[in-house]
Amino acid sequence: MNELQERILREGQILGNGILKVDSFVNHQVDPRLMDACGKEFARRFSRLGATKVLTAEISGIAPAVTTALHLDLPVVYARKTKPITMPDQVYLTLAPSHTKGRMVELIVSPEYLANGERVLIIDDFLASGQTILGLARLAEAAGSRIVGVGALIEKVFEGGRTVLKSLGVPIESIACIKSLEDGKIEFVE
Amino acid sequence: MNELQERILREGQILGNGILKVDSFVNHQVDPRLMDACGKEFARRFSRLGATKVLTAEISGIAPAVTTALHLDLPVVYARKTKPITMPDQVYLTLAPSHTKGRMVELIVSPEYLANGERVLIIDDFLASGQTILGLARLAEAAGSRIVGVGALIEKVFEGGRTVLKSLGVPIESIACIKSLEDGKIEFVE
Repeated sequence: MNELQERILREGQILGNGILKVDSFVNHQVDPRLMDACGKEFARRFSRLGATKVLTAEISGIAPAVTTALHLDLPVVYARKTKPITMPDQVYLTLAPSHTKGRMVELIVSPEYLANGERVLIIDDFLASGQTILGLARLAEAAGSRIVGVGALIEKVFEGGRTVLKSLGVPIESIACIKSLEDGKIEFVE
Repeated sequence: MNELQERILREGQILGNGILKVDSFVNHQVDPRLMDACGKEFARRFSRLGATKVLTAEISGIAPAVTTALHLDLPVVYARKTKPITMPDQVYLTLAPSHTKGRMVELIVSPEYLANGERVLIIDDFLASGQTILGLARLAEAAGSRIVGVGALIEKVFEGGRTVLKSLGVPIESIACIKSLEDGKIEFVE
């Protein structure tokens, strides 16, 4: 069992509806040392892909994406959910359903920072339905970039995201892979 | 001249209205190595304060707060701007005007992660009017925590934030301190 799994067992809270609360080390409070260890692990797993950029979505993807990018020595781009005034009028924009918000959210990337020919590694906190990551992949493809890998700290396999992302044809890695949250028990895939 | 200042001179764009666009290394694309260097520098400057937690505001504060906390070996809490479903009903909430959004935004922290007696170091990307940082300080005070220091990557001294924050009575540090953006020229404080 790795450090992230141990932490999930110790501090994760099952809220029902398939929601796992990890606000004490990922989503509101962040444990930088744990994020750094996960970033290092992603860098190890994805070291041979020749990635040129890490792409994530604000907000909770930022910490693991930054530590991964630090270990791979790459820049990170985080897709914005609202267009800031510093962004040009012409942007890449897609819609993705948000699990925790119960509505569609925008994912926006400026063409300034996602170029034709980039090799993009997507890093996010959760892989659940896969819809946010699929949205990020659409943005990258619109920019003429190529997705080369997908990494998530926590995968909830019972939500089927891995199947949805199969069409991308790239390696998908998660550090803690959860089989079930039923009966108030967190069960990992062996 | 430090690395952040050099980067600002090379890539920063003056958009008018006192707005400096640093989207290529701080606010949309992030340079993790630069963020790590700045985090290390904050850790050095704030090492003697006995901080127990780093506090920032989503979204752009997260990267420098995480790298600072990594070097200080502390947890980070980022104040949310919308209340996620994982947060309890009872929260600390304050309003702060957003410079780049032109409206008031909420800053929300769960009492779970900001406790009575904590010594809080606030880290953010910009120190401009100081209103976001003052909002974070109000949240910390509401939790019975004590602010022990404030660090910002980039300070725009002409917006007067440092004066506003004087009442906190704590050290305020910025890594790139900008005196003026007039006539299309970025001028640092010596």
